Amino acid sequence: MTVRAGVVVTGTEVLAGRVTDRNGPWVAQRLLEMGVDVAHITVCGDRPDDLTAQVRFLADQRVDLIVTTGGLGPTADDLTVPTVAALYGRELALDAELEDRIHAIVQRWRSRMSSAADSEPLRAGIRKQAMVPQGAQSISPTGTAPGVAIPSDESRSLPAVLILPGPPRELQAMWPEALDSAPVAEVLARRTQMRQDTIRGYRLSEADLAETLRTAEREITGFDDLEITTCLSLGELEMVTRYAESARPAYMDLERLVGKIHGARVFSTDGSTIDDIVAHRLSGHRIATAESCTGGMIAARLTDRAGSSAYVIGAVVSYANEAKTGLLDVPAEVIDQHGAVSEPVAALMAEGALNRLNVDIAVSTSGVAGPGGGTEAKPVGTVCFAIAVTGRPTVTHTLHLPGDRASVRALSTTAAMHMLADALETR
Amino acid sequence: MTVRAGVVVTGTEVLAGRVTDRNGPWVAQRLLEMGVDVAHITVCGDRPDDLTAQVRFLADQRVDLIVTTGGLGPTADDLTVPTVAALYGRELALDAELEDRIHAIVQRWRSRMSSAADSEPLRAGIRKQAMVPQGAQSISPTGTAPGVAIPSDESRSLPAVLILPGPPRELQAMWPEALDSAPVAEVLARRTQMRQDTIRGYRLSEADLAETLRTAEREITGFDDLEITTCLSLGELEMVTRYAESARPAYMDLERLVGKIHGARVFSTDGSTIDDIVAHRLSGHRIATAESCTGGMIAARLTDRAGSSAYVIGAVVSYANEAKTGLLDVPAEVIDQHGAVSEPVAALMAEGALNRLNVDIAVSTSGVAGPGGGTEAKPVGTVCFAIAVTGRPTVTHTLHLPGDRASVRALSTTAAMHMLADALETR
Repeated sequence: MTVRAGVVVTGTEVLAGRVTDRNGPWVAQRLLEMGVDVAHITVCGDRPDDLTAQVRFLADQRVDLIVTTGGLGPTADDLTVPTVAALYGRELALDAELEDRIHAIVQRWRSRMSSAADSEPLRAGIRKQAMVPQGAQSISPTGTAPGVAIPSDESRSLPAVLILPGPPRELQAMWPEALDSAPVAEVLARRTQMRQDTIRGYRLSEADLAETLRTAEREITGFDDLEITTCLSLGELEMVTRYAESARPAYMDLERLVGKIHGARVFSTDGSTIDDIVAHRLSGHRIATAESCTGGMIAARLTDRAGSSAYVIGAVVSYANEAKTGLLDVPAEVIDQHGAVSEPVAALMAEGALNRLNVDIAVSTSGVAGPGGGTEAKPVGTVCFAIAVTGRPTVTHTLHLPGDRASVRALSTTAAMHMLADALETR
Repeated sequence: MTVRAGVVVTGTEVLAGRVTDRNGPWVAQRLLEMGVDVAHITVCGDRPDDLTAQVRFLADQRVDLIVTTGGLGPTADDLTVPTVAALYGRELALDAELEDRIHAIVQRWRSRMSSAADSEPLRAGIRKQAMVPQGAQSISPTGTAPGVAIPSDESRSLPAVLILPGPPRELQAMWPEALDSAPVAEVLARRTQMRQDTIRGYRLSEADLAETLRTAEREITGFDDLEITTCLSLGELEMVTRYAESARPAYMDLERLVGKIHGARVFSTDGSTIDDIVAHRLSGHRIATAESCTGGMIAARLTDRAGSSAYVIGAVVSYANEAKTGLLDVPAEVIDQHGAVSEPVAALMAEGALNRLNVDIAVSTSGVAGPGGGTEAKPVGTVCFAIAVTGRPTVTHTLHLPGDRASVRALSTTAAMHMLADALETR
């Protein structure tokens, strides 16, 4: 059976576009992974009437579960629990044991901050956070805000609702206990288990993949039982397929067909990202980067990962030509002759990093990120790359990348990751 | 008069949490800036029934304008225009002139890609994109998808709707023409002009600002006419105030009060970000970074800005100790004696960058980003910084930053930007 959910994200700063919501996407992904269909996500500010309207809307859309995020703080504008409780016709009651627990958490924080004694506003805030709707189950807080799970109410045509706090770390830490709470577990028990698999391609166009899917539709038995979405992001094409266990053979046929037609353009069929693949292949290596137009973004991305100090030695951002010469030993005459954005300079940058940082693999970038600096011969978006590997000839590439400065820099960073993955594969 | 709007973001990949929506926040910000109140943002997949339900919901909430994004492509799953047109009871009609224009745009792209001749699916896709609801106004495409503005329909209790494409660059380029279209202009003409001003603080707590706002509420005449939201992000506290022109004196009083109480912790009252301030103050300088735990993030952030090549010379990411010694001349004995995460090492890193890259200001970071590597004396989150300036003693700081690896790295990057701003101010 299909179980449908809706997500309500609260927060004036999210509604106003000043803060990027991380909870809606995270909750949606978790629900989809476990076979729950996400029908709607709604965002509202701190106005109780708007929140009530959104919950009522999702109920009218016959979702089986509503998850709300945010609005559980100690201050007066945090209104999710009383607003939802009123809609469900449930009185709030103080949970004294919960109040003590929140108080203990707050005391621990305050002792670290060496603040003054309890104030009345502070105690009132804690009491507010410890109010639980009658018949609801509270979810243990990891910050100061407990969550609440309220069972469905058929007489009011209201589905089960799970109320979680706004800070992503708190929400994510509370998720397992939330799923186990009776009101949520009861809904989840009704669902058909779904699998979800992801295929990722690089330099593979949406049109080409669409053509392959048309072939699949003709040739693969059970293709219609696969729910496929595709998405192009930073030059990577992601194809996510959801299916019931019974459709597994059809999915395996599809995976084979995509691999057969697109070959090496498919770089992942097991969910791994290009960052996972590069990190895995870098095991036992020493890497450095030499960056101009990417300005340190490749180094930042490599070191984003815990444990990257095992293989990242360092990087040189040689933004000015004098830095290319001074730190990477690129002769000024080569820059004069070919220009900074050229394959010879990119090659010497990578080789300079290889030597100076004593690594066995180095990647370099030199390009015109824009908006200025473009010429007829080298328009904005022209980026030269090189990969230098100990004991091998240095390989260079030139790409013409679309979009604005941010786009060119981001696409260059992703391109460098793919070049690294390729170079590390064929050693 | 208050004009209210709702935004509908379409896209299965957004609903599924795989792609971060950039359109909802962008549209919300633009609307708020011009004094339109954004009441709801909703996200739906590619199912017409869900889209119809969301538009109907926003209409029931009495918004004056609905903006939809996405679902205007040439393929069958792009259904926004026919779905909304059906709800508004308007037939679709082919706009032959528009069809020709889209055809010309597609031909230009295809000639660059050196593809084959027109195919029937291609022509069908173009024809689909050139279908305009009767009585609606089309908005010129900047990609291949034109937008559509449909006037309000009182007999159906439906507000004006503006339909725009999903690619953010296309949507943003079409925005000015969309605002001028008769159905949208008619709604905007009814609004009260609102001002919006932003005050930004650093190392200023939400609790302290809340206390200041309570004082303001008591002391400032007209305080209730100010609509204030506060938001803490990466250690920066942002206070955004919306108000009608008549409440300008109250806002000026508030700005003075906040400045009087919080002094230098308020770094911006004119909308400028710390990146704007640093870029402005770097004019005429030469800067380099020497980064360990931030792994190139400060350099990437500085070079994110067009024109940064005027002052960014380069950076050294000295992730391994040997890179600190080899590229930044930090003596191995100092690292042995104090540890890599120490103020003496941070100072020598910044000074090494100053000398090696021949700049007049350099910032360095060395810290424990986690999850591993923490000790009793230097737990995860301990980050040492230094600012070296030609002719001045090098200044060091140690911060203890909360959160996971990504949080420590991001907070460190922002902290470095503020240290740069301070150092550049007092020259």
